[in-house]
Amino acid sequence: MTRTLEVDLGDRSYPIHIGPGLLNDPVLYRPHIRGRQVMIVTNETVAPLYLAPLHEALAGLDVREVVLPDGEQYKTLEVWNRIFDALLDARFARDCTLVALGGGVVGDMAGFAAACYQRGVAFIQVPTTLLSQVDSSVGGKTGINHPAGKNMIGAFHQPLAVIADTETLDTLPQRELSAGLAEVLKYGLIRDCAFLDWLESHMAELLSRDREALAHAIRRSCEIKAQLVAEDELESGQRALLNLGHTFGHAIETAAGYGNWLHGEAVGAGMCMAADLSARLGWLAEADVERVRRLVVCAGLPTEPPAELDAERFRALMAVDKKVLDGRLRLVLLTALGEAVISDTIDDEPLLATLSARRP
Amino acid sequence: MTRTLEVDLGDRSYPIHIGPGLLNDPVLYRPHIRGRQVMIVTNETVAPLYLAPLHEALAGLDVREVVLPDGEQYKTLEVWNRIFDALLDARFARDCTLVALGGGVVGDMAGFAAACYQRGVAFIQVPTTLLSQVDSSVGGKTGINHPAGKNMIGAFHQPLAVIADTETLDTLPQRELSAGLAEVLKYGLIRDCAFLDWLESHMAELLSRDREALAHAIRRSCEIKAQLVAEDELESGQRALLNLGHTFGHAIETAAGYGNWLHGEAVGAGMCMAADLSARLGWLAEADVERVRRLVVCAGLPTEPPAELDAERFRALMAVDKKVLDGRLRLVLLTALGEAVISDTIDDEPLLATLSARRP
Repeated sequence: MTRTLEVDLGDRSYPIHIGPGLLNDPVLYRPHIRGRQVMIVTNETVAPLYLAPLHEALAGLDVREVVLPDGEQYKTLEVWNRIFDALLDARFARDCTLVALGGGVVGDMAGFAAACYQRGVAFIQVPTTLLSQVDSSVGGKTGINHPAGKNMIGAFHQPLAVIADTETLDTLPQRELSAGLAEVLKYGLIRDCAFLDWLESHMAELLSRDREALAHAIRRSCEIKAQLVAEDELESGQRALLNLGHTFGHAIETAAGYGNWLHGEAVGAGMCMAADLSARLGWLAEADVERVRRLVVCAGLPTEPPAELDAERFRALMAVDKKVLDGRLRLVLLTALGEAVISDTIDDEPLLATLSARRP
Repeated sequence: MTRTLEVDLGDRSYPIHIGPGLLNDPVLYRPHIRGRQVMIVTNETVAPLYLAPLHEALAGLDVREVVLPDGEQYKTLEVWNRIFDALLDARFARDCTLVALGGGVVGDMAGFAAACYQRGVAFIQVPTTLLSQVDSSVGGKTGINHPAGKNMIGAFHQPLAVIADTETLDTLPQRELSAGLAEVLKYGLIRDCAFLDWLESHMAELLSRDREALAHAIRRSCEIKAQLVAEDELESGQRALLNLGHTFGHAIETAAGYGNWLHGEAVGAGMCMAADLSARLGWLAEADVERVRRLVVCAGLPTEPPAELDAERFRALMAVDKKVLDGRLRLVLLTALGEAVISDTIDDEPLLATLSARRP
């Protein structure tokens, strides 16, 4: 049942293990732990569920933990600093290993702390949400938020392994399951129309947590992500396709206040907006826009940005996105279902129309 | 008069320009600035002296500045965050350039901000102190302090160019000139006895700021540093020799409270302690220890740690050093003047003797 993929990055290649019951398997961790000091970074929600089995897997090592508050609103400089407090309290040396146990917020913060502690130490991702298993734990993007913009402070720092235990999804709140499906849909939309078809016909199974269906969705998502990351680790080109819906989505998250919209919810609405804009530019058929919206609705996600976010403010928030270069906004748009492009030549008129449109 | 060295790091190679009157020369900056947005990071002491000429050199670009308080005690997470506030207030994009104008603290903080802003942007070092011209601006080590240890949070992030204007040393306080000489002596001690001889016979000229003598000392220091960095960018081996005196020195700085001892002063005392320990181990002649101490005294630097810092506390502070691996302290010691080694097999007895010894 366990499947192992590889992210091919030369001497920084690493495995992604996907399957049930992996979290407490010592064999998966040991090859990646160099010294004896291990710091588990987790949060208040995940700790009572999975800290004990993870400790079992790491028995015999000098294992400590730091438990952070749960939520995107805590992905801040101050909370991040608590990881350094814990590492230095315990006198952890440069040959220590950080283990991120939790969702995307924990993984981003722990990974960024690993990137910066003593100018870089080892880390392992143990994602426990659908979103982190299919997206944020793979690829080495780490970071924290600034009040003015999502993920504005961060680093590329690849993990030594990703251990995605699909049984942890049993305890995931339904709202977070839906949020994870946003990123799963993304892979179909940018790269694989056949996968999108499969998702469409298996959405009910996915939402009811059919194990086989979820395992397939996770594997195919990780395959696509691993391929794009291996081709373009530092996002100088095609890796940016993974940001479909994200420039819209980050603006929504910042406007709504971190933690009010889940990241996946904002990406769901953002992908609908990207499809809408693609249609306004004549690149995508109106029927395909409707199909995207239906898929997003079926996944239990919003298709519209907040009513009170007007186009002008929306445009201003998008202007601090990391994909802005030379003052030009760069957006990922669709030319077909399964085919995406990056464009920095989008006129303001259709963009503002998309930003102000609210469909029923 | 201007001499250009190269730090050879493949496609991340960069020039070090050393000479008088370079700070306001537009030609040195332009090849390294990609977009139009430039953020100068400086401090309250340096800004009134050199901000205007630097603005001249960057005329025609969209140039902003962020002015930080001056001193090692401000090399904190909170002050570092002000750089991000400034970058985001001005909506700086990923193709912006940071310019560090000042000493080691400014260079370390600006470089680390460049490493992390939007996961990495360009930066140029314009060092204005002797210490930063001979050491901290070259080699890509960036970071900030934690109350428990110096430079514990940071990154390797190479600049695109180092522009060391030797005329800026005219305004340097004498105490800081001496602090810079500590790092200059270090290069002689670890790698080049002939340079050490030259320093011994030219110390008076250096202290009276003879331009030719200072230019020679800076060039030779940068040559040695550039070579060690090119051979071992991420300090997995010989680059660690550059830390002679630094494990002792960082403990002194942390114990005394950041900003009370200048970094170079702590390194001066630390190098004397490294020589003392080397002699206790039978690796270095007592006459050489005395010669090291005389050189450090002549440079205007302390040779002893603070009287109130007892051996036990000293040992504990050293245990959080970044060179600790597998629980073992690793120290740079001398086997001769001009020859250094890294050892992790030092017995506690001679170490504690060195830590508690106070010579007249």
